[in-house]
Amino acid sequence: MALDKTLRDTIADAVSAGFDDQIAFTSALVACASQRGEEHTVQDLIFRTLKARGYAMDRFDMDREALARHPGAGRWSDTHSEAPIVVGIHRPKEETGRSVILQGHVDVVPTGPEHMWTHPPYAATIEGDWMYGRGAGDMKSGFACLIGALDALRAAGYQPAGTCYVQSVVEEESTGNGALMTHLRGYKADAALIPEPTGESLIRANLGVLWFQVAVEGFPVHVQEMGDGANAIDAAMRVTAALRELEASWNARKAEHPLFAGFDHPLNLNIGKIAGGDWASSVPCWATIDYRISILPGWNVAECAKEIEDHITAFARADSYLANTLPKVTFNGFFAEGYVQPEGSEAEAVLARAHESAMGEPLTAHSSLAYLDARVYALFDGIPTLCYGAKSRASHGFDESVSLSSLKRTTLSIALFIAEWCGLEAV
Amino acid sequence: MALDKTLRDTIADAVSAGFDDQIAFTSALVACASQRGEEHTVQDLIFRTLKARGYAMDRFDMDREALARHPGAGRWSDTHSEAPIVVGIHRPKEETGRSVILQGHVDVVPTGPEHMWTHPPYAATIEGDWMYGRGAGDMKSGFACLIGALDALRAAGYQPAGTCYVQSVVEEESTGNGALMTHLRGYKADAALIPEPTGESLIRANLGVLWFQVAVEGFPVHVQEMGDGANAIDAAMRVTAALRELEASWNARKAEHPLFAGFDHPLNLNIGKIAGGDWASSVPCWATIDYRISILPGWNVAECAKEIEDHITAFARADSYLANTLPKVTFNGFFAEGYVQPEGSEAEAVLARAHESAMGEPLTAHSSLAYLDARVYALFDGIPTLCYGAKSRASHGFDESVSLSSLKRTTLSIALFIAEWCGLEAV
Repeated sequence: MALDKTLRDTIADAVSAGFDDQIAFTSALVACASQRGEEHTVQDLIFRTLKARGYAMDRFDMDREALARHPGAGRWSDTHSEAPIVVGIHRPKEETGRSVILQGHVDVVPTGPEHMWTHPPYAATIEGDWMYGRGAGDMKSGFACLIGALDALRAAGYQPAGTCYVQSVVEEESTGNGALMTHLRGYKADAALIPEPTGESLIRANLGVLWFQVAVEGFPVHVQEMGDGANAIDAAMRVTAALRELEASWNARKAEHPLFAGFDHPLNLNIGKIAGGDWASSVPCWATIDYRISILPGWNVAECAKEIEDHITAFARADSYLANTLPKVTFNGFFAEGYVQPEGSEAEAVLARAHESAMGEPLTAHSSLAYLDARVYALFDGIPTLCYGAKSRASHGFDESVSLSSLKRTTLSIALFIAEWCGLEAV
Repeated sequence: MALDKTLRDTIADAVSAGFDDQIAFTSALVACASQRGEEHTVQDLIFRTLKARGYAMDRFDMDREALARHPGAGRWSDTHSEAPIVVGIHRPKEETGRSVILQGHVDVVPTGPEHMWTHPPYAATIEGDWMYGRGAGDMKSGFACLIGALDALRAAGYQPAGTCYVQSVVEEESTGNGALMTHLRGYKADAALIPEPTGESLIRANLGVLWFQVAVEGFPVHVQEMGDGANAIDAAMRVTAALRELEASWNARKAEHPLFAGFDHPLNLNIGKIAGGDWASSVPCWATIDYRISILPGWNVAECAKEIEDHITAFARADSYLANTLPKVTFNGFFAEGYVQPEGSEAEAVLARAHESAMGEPLTAHSSLAYLDARVYALFDGIPTLCYGAKSRASHGFDESVSLSSLKRTTLSIALFIAEWCGLEAV
């Protein structure tokens, strides 16, 4: 049931009053460079921020063995982060309301060449309505919305009447193991909310994602003896072409899922990274390519992985160069299935009311083609999982940025959601 | 005029008697890993070896400014070696004979993945007639032949009656600036001999070589927004395809040079090294490819470089992705023209007699498709330049190796050449 108008306005005023602090905190988060493995300082900043607010704190490491036993865990690699997971726990005086997981990730993807940024990627420069920076959109500003919403409730004299787990995770951009680790640690709630920059819209469905690396090796010779195509870099590009066939055949099956059938090309194979050879005058004898591919919700990830491996092997056996030394396929990150957030949940109804109250427009929903940690709570906890956040631009690109006015609206929306979902009690 | 048979046999016996020491020295050279920039220890070993024999020593650094002023210098880059050049000088008691430059390079190309070697690349393992190792063929064993030949003459009681410059250089595999530096330092002689592993045959002609790197940049996006081909790695491969057209048009002109007209495909473009992207789930926004291409003797290297640049730019302007940010072309190594060693020189006649005496067969000659330092002496000193050495296998490849029996024959051939070319005097 919708919140009382006076209470709604009180919360809105509190969100506005605290917004400068919220933006300052967002800037501080962006300033902590936190590419994979580097998230220690930002997690410590978040630990101190939550602890200062009086939350009960839990900080824990990845449990590599427990993750290895879980079918949804991303595959471990040498570059896996060892930064801790941080959880701040609010417990009400009287547990009269519903509980919620409020989650965000602090890992960011690489910046690419910094000279291609208009503003330095970790400077959190504000220009007009936009804050620029790697992670400004995806999703440090989202995490700051969670704190901003809880702070606003408190500033208004209230706190949630249900348990709130404020979870700051890592590895969202590579394995999803941070979110999975909170699940394995035993955190459970009646719903989850993850403020990814969804453009003020709810994620209805989301693809699964796999990461894998293909390593090609073959005998090098002096360039004076080279024959056409008998080099590892060209061979690696032929593997890519073969994988494009698999990608096409998977996209041809898009009608299997009504929420993705409307996309031209829902399933993208990305050749994200390549390295090969070591000398301009030697025919390259090795090359590695890192790929990312997505799968429809409902597809079994292990079966898809096998299909990828089999496809590469079948192609290689027919290739005169690759047949001598078959390419090595290593799944080295995401090993995740997609999810659907079914319509009709009470959590969604609460968010829809909060959204309309904050935005003045009805809540919309859409399908996402990117990996989202929401899959952990949707698939393995089976709870309503609301992936919903502000407007951003150029995630993973240069001049990534987030709209400040959208952040403010979204913070209010999240505060109203928490207020109604958990209920409120006086501080 | 041919050497006296008794003297010839005395020298042959001395080569045989010293051959175990020569092979031990060759092994010591191979054991000094000396990829680009790492040649300090092997150059110190050679300095001590020459100094111990009483040669006057000269050791000097690259003169970057002097090199930059020379049209045949390879282009400087961050990976340019800073190891010294070492020259040991034998001056006779009475200068009655002709002088000679005896040159070898000690830099080696990368090993590639070591697990693909049957024998470790720096172990100098001997199995049957073959010594295995990176640089065993190309060309540490050749340098050891020079020392072996001079040692044999001395063991027989003689030394050259003309000045001999024993020059150990670096950068032969990347710029040719080591050899060029000896020229700039002022070393001159009546002929030069470089015992590259030519298979006991003389190099009659040799291609020019250019190195260049193409850097592609473009705006990355989240993989969920990717469009076909709008990524830097695919774009870099399109540049490669465009360069293959240039390569084909150059090969179509092979009839311009009679010594290369008989080859199917004399001019090879090699894609030696690639790097691009930094994240499997980001569309790659940068890629660099290192290329090597060869040109016919007589072609102007600066004009060829311009043709490469123009070809890439013209292609890029018509490519929807590349046109936004034109690829950057950087010449970053070899910038060398080919050479021809004309028939009929007295130096070649002397080598032919020495060869037939050592091998029992007439000297043959052939054209080479690889870069050779010999171009420096042939083009810029205009002296007879004899590139001639032992039989080897898999230069730049795994299990590179050199034939010991061939090394022995070649050492005798070189000793006989020095004896006749320089003349001899008693030690």
